[in-house]
Amino acid sequence: MVHNFNAGPSILPKEVFEQAAAAVLNWNNSGLSILEFGHRTAEFTSVMEEARSLVKELMHLDANHEVLFLHGGASTQFMQVPMNLLDPKDSAAYTDTGVWGSKAIKEAKFFGKVEVVCSSKEKNYNFIPKDFAVPNDSKYLHITTNNTIYGTQWQRIPATSNSLVADMSSDIMSRVLDFNAFDLIYAGAQKNMGPSGVNLVVVNKNILGKIKRAIPTIMDYRNHINEGSMLNTPPVFSVFVCMLTLRWLKSQGGVAAIEKLNNEKAALLYKEIDENEMFTGTTVKEDRSKMNVCFVMNDPGKEADFLKYTQSLGIVGIKGHRSVGGFRASLYNALPISSVLVLVKAMKDFAEKR
Amino acid sequence: MVHNFNAGPSILPKEVFEQAAAAVLNWNNSGLSILEFGHRTAEFTSVMEEARSLVKELMHLDANHEVLFLHGGASTQFMQVPMNLLDPKDSAAYTDTGVWGSKAIKEAKFFGKVEVVCSSKEKNYNFIPKDFAVPNDSKYLHITTNNTIYGTQWQRIPATSNSLVADMSSDIMSRVLDFNAFDLIYAGAQKNMGPSGVNLVVVNKNILGKIKRAIPTIMDYRNHINEGSMLNTPPVFSVFVCMLTLRWLKSQGGVAAIEKLNNEKAALLYKEIDENEMFTGTTVKEDRSKMNVCFVMNDPGKEADFLKYTQSLGIVGIKGHRSVGGFRASLYNALPISSVLVLVKAMKDFAEKR
Repeated sequence: MVHNFNAGPSILPKEVFEQAAAAVLNWNNSGLSILEFGHRTAEFTSVMEEARSLVKELMHLDANHEVLFLHGGASTQFMQVPMNLLDPKDSAAYTDTGVWGSKAIKEAKFFGKVEVVCSSKEKNYNFIPKDFAVPNDSKYLHITTNNTIYGTQWQRIPATSNSLVADMSSDIMSRVLDFNAFDLIYAGAQKNMGPSGVNLVVVNKNILGKIKRAIPTIMDYRNHINEGSMLNTPPVFSVFVCMLTLRWLKSQGGVAAIEKLNNEKAALLYKEIDENEMFTGTTVKEDRSKMNVCFVMNDPGKEADFLKYTQSLGIVGIKGHRSVGGFRASLYNALPISSVLVLVKAMKDFAEKR
Repeated sequence: MVHNFNAGPSILPKEVFEQAAAAVLNWNNSGLSILEFGHRTAEFTSVMEEARSLVKELMHLDANHEVLFLHGGASTQFMQVPMNLLDPKDSAAYTDTGVWGSKAIKEAKFFGKVEVVCSSKEKNYNFIPKDFAVPNDSKYLHITTNNTIYGTQWQRIPATSNSLVADMSSDIMSRVLDFNAFDLIYAGAQKNMGPSGVNLVVVNKNILGKIKRAIPTIMDYRNHINEGSMLNTPPVFSVFVCMLTLRWLKSQGGVAAIEKLNNEKAALLYKEIDENEMFTGTTVKEDRSKMNVCFVMNDPGKEADFLKYTQSLGIVGIKGHRSVGGFRASLYNALPISSVLVLVKAMKDFAEKR
């Protein structure tokens, strides 16, 4: 039994793997692999439509919000967002809560002015800034809702009169938010929603077409909306696996139900971190992520031993990112609570034995 | 038995489907699906390296040519190529041999001047222009080596003193060319090389960094080269399936061996088209594609009947593109000669019976 705590690409439901593997051999009794299906076939078009429609349903999106599955990963969105929303003389407000946020800032500067309205960089991004002001004339405010590397998460989305743009790559579909309050949401699929190779974009269509820049065809969200996310050959298999994962999420009761489980998983692990004298959490408590739990050992000399011990129990993917050190356990939607219990027990047992 | 003549995404070797499906369930006896593997793991890094190295080997690339697997499909390259190679005052020469070439032209105009040096548009792209001149000061000459929709192919790559850039999406790895004569080659994987969702780029590193434009990080080929094609999370599964397909190609004897088979397959089908009084090829003979064979029936009223008849034999994907009509049989690397024989026999039998 393997317990997969990978930060991403990461665990997906077992039944999704089984359905995906079967479709690679023979999809829908067609005698063909899903990998050799034309994307314009009725069969695949219905996969794309079901995936988009499940996103709308699970996120309770209103009619202004369009759902796209695009190539390129969130790193492409760092560029595509300002390319579509920001003229050179315009200014956008960005929050600097980690490496991914700071990468988004860097790319926005290619297209317009950027005001960094807050940063937790000085404390190695171990908290979410609360006190900051967003200039009225900012075209939008950009946040990274969950910071995979550091294990922090915006528990409350900042109230703002500006247009709100969010990178939700590492907590999409994990908790209930008022998603209609966002004008643009993007997320690489490879945490809670599917395999790598596809990007979810949710965009309020009313914010598009307001700038003067000529936008290359493949970068203009409006073209993707007009073509139903089929402007060019989509990443067929990645979209298919997203659709399977979204179906699974719906069958579990949707986002509210999975949030409850996610809260339980995170509470179990943070409780052990706080009670076990060998371990310490690395982030400010109130900003702790429910998705990525970062912790170190009070005696760093024991970390290699603990890692080895967890490996012997089938636990994989908990080595911390080099910029934080220690450990990071990612508790994405598909991770069963039983895996968290194995990790918690390992921490207890390790502390007792030494 | 299904005979898959899809234009793309299209047939891949059966053993690739089997290996891919197995890896989705349990990759390398890890107990994990390849879909839940981190891209920075030693296991996946070695997949990426093997895929890149197989491309170098199969295309006999010299040390100046770098191999990248990127997100986005060829439609992204339409933009990325001029963004990296063309300053606003520079001019590039483009050949207009089909819809894809003309899309590349449209995107290049966002970044510099474009001289369309030849076009076969007036004849619905049924031939490859031979007589044209490329201005000496063109930064590069762009060609589409194979035109999927119309069934034409450059049999001889034009001799030019300019830098040569090619979209090889639909004939990459299908025939031997002097690939080192190209400064940049790009190809969506979803014909001969793998599933959709990944793009092969082969670039002579010496042509990069010559322009003044500031290039967004994710669009700059140099960043991808520096990071070994792992600048951001790659489309893991698509790269893996490409690696499997490239392994298969090598085991078949490489590009020269597959070209021989491709020539045989195309010769069989064109012979039937030319000999069978019911059918006519739609392109000029000397420019016929070995990959996509386009033909119509002399009595268009019989086309629906013939299509129905072929479907009863397990033949799929031969309906022609709406802009050409009739039929298109795509004979990519993985299509067995036995499938071509079934189609040829169907044409013979149909003609005899009516």
